[in-house]
Amino acid sequence: MATFGGIDLGGTKIQTIVMRGEDHSVLGQARSLTPHEGGPAAVVDALVACLSEAAGAAKVEIKELDGVGVGAPGEVDAQAGTLARATNLSEWERPYPLAAALSERFDVKVRLGNDVSVAAHAELLLGAGQGAKSLLCVFWGTGVGGGVALDGKLWHGRGDAGEIGHMVVKQGGARCLCGRDGCLEAYAGRRAMEAEAKRLVEKGHDTDLFKIMRERQRHTLSSGVWAKALEREDKLAVRLIERAVQALGSGVASAVNLLDVELVLLGGGLGTRFGEPMLERIAEAMKPHLYNDDKPSALRPVELGDLGGALGAALLCES
Amino acid sequence: MATFGGIDLGGTKIQTIVMRGEDHSVLGQARSLTPHEGGPAAVVDALVACLSEAAGAAKVEIKELDGVGVGAPGEVDAQAGTLARATNLSEWERPYPLAAALSERFDVKVRLGNDVSVAAHAELLLGAGQGAKSLLCVFWGTGVGGGVALDGKLWHGRGDAGEIGHMVVKQGGARCLCGRDGCLEAYAGRRAMEAEAKRLVEKGHDTDLFKIMRERQRHTLSSGVWAKALEREDKLAVRLIERAVQALGSGVASAVNLLDVELVLLGGGLGTRFGEPMLERIAEAMKPHLYNDDKPSALRPVELGDLGGALGAALLCES
Repeated sequence: MATFGGIDLGGTKIQTIVMRGEDHSVLGQARSLTPHEGGPAAVVDALVACLSEAAGAAKVEIKELDGVGVGAPGEVDAQAGTLARATNLSEWERPYPLAAALSERFDVKVRLGNDVSVAAHAELLLGAGQGAKSLLCVFWGTGVGGGVALDGKLWHGRGDAGEIGHMVVKQGGARCLCGRDGCLEAYAGRRAMEAEAKRLVEKGHDTDLFKIMRERQRHTLSSGVWAKALEREDKLAVRLIERAVQALGSGVASAVNLLDVELVLLGGGLGTRFGEPMLERIAEAMKPHLYNDDKPSALRPVELGDLGGALGAALLCES
Repeated sequence: MATFGGIDLGGTKIQTIVMRGEDHSVLGQARSLTPHEGGPAAVVDALVACLSEAAGAAKVEIKELDGVGVGAPGEVDAQAGTLARATNLSEWERPYPLAAALSERFDVKVRLGNDVSVAAHAELLLGAGQGAKSLLCVFWGTGVGGGVALDGKLWHGRGDAGEIGHMVVKQGGARCLCGRDGCLEAYAGRRAMEAEAKRLVEKGHDTDLFKIMRERQRHTLSSGVWAKALEREDKLAVRLIERAVQALGSGVASAVNLLDVELVLLGGGLGTRFGEPMLERIAEAMKPHLYNDDKPSALRPVELGDLGGALGAALLCES
């Protein structure tokens, strides 16, 4: 019986699983926070610890696994096993041989994939996208990632398709953390929203966002912090979320106008946290921009939730 | 020997050809202006006259053709043979049975396709896109149309993919002729640019655009009028073209970020008229928005020029 390890390396969290190949069931899982300093070495240590924990829960030894897949943010060279320009990770600009580094620690073959691609692949194969001929996955979290599936399979382009977060929704608009102007992510990415909230507080605006963050002993404005602030009807939070929703509406509608997919799935830390009511708001925000507004694409939540990325990473070992 | 008729019905011009099936050579061609009043009936008359002229040049009778294909702007229902919401044509909102109307006049089977899709298909099969695995065609003319080819074949989505002109480049931006805000076409479509030029003139701005139009005995600001105005360094024309170039840069870069295609082709009335130097300007305008700016997609002109649409329409009869 084949068993695989799956690691979802996010800008905020690390999620690991041990998956049975036969039925794609999860035998064990673990989760930890992504270290915000120490560069690749610190991240590798955290990944090893987190997968060990999942293996412990599954009662297997890591070295007995038939492979480990990693979904990573930034520029993945799957052939070379390197990750570069992971702007949401600590000190991770130049290509780092992540597959080799982990393989040495695990004594198992390690495959790399793009975090968002693998999560989209998991939704297509095992989740809300099953049976869809064409699909756009939007992961609304620390950044805004996307995956495109056409004719029932993931579209990679020359290797880097799916960057919906860096579609331009406003020429000459807000500066994105990627350095470009007017990207969707500049309005809707959790990190960009946090930077904007800080900027507004410095300008004298009032908000409970950072108070809630401290109450919850977090170091960033997590999706839970945003949710709580919305619950309290915090004006600045309401305004920044509305701004994000409008940007998502424009960006996702643009992608739909170009590709006319039958299904759009929403996931990611914020997308999953806010759930159905937010889907409806995003659908409303898309409407004025949809070219075929009489037959909008279906908009649904992802099904695999927090495990999607790790499942998709484990699936890398099967292909 | 099979021969086919091909009709490219544009918002400004009608182009017809008679094509030999065997080698896709053009045996005869004709061109006329699209009537701006009289609704579908007037357009049908103009199409009949124009294809008759091409048939005359090819020395064949229309009724001897093995089929006629029509590339039309707006919502094409290929099954039903109807065209609806052709906003660039006279009085053409509700579905009109264009295939049946033409078939009756020609006594030949008529197939409908989307004007931009068929032109993109022609470029992929016979033009600058030959051999490309993934391709985005951008037709910059009266409107801004697009065609997407992935894995070597055209991507239709649920039937209406390719609406790059209605991707949002500026949230809350200029009103498009489609009624939506901030579309690429609102900045770069020839008709939208003409409307903006008129608006600026009414506000007291100075330009030679309309003088040149009258000199050339045109009723609209044709691509030739814009080219002449640029040659004369007309300030308002320079400014509106720069605005269009920036919007094209953002919109095309957004599409490339999503799909990571290997090739972008630029065609259409304005695209073809301005040629290479304009391609370079658009490439420059894309650069600041490209997520993978170290490996930009190749940007090249279409090869089939004014005949691409009619060739693609004729190709509809072969499939």
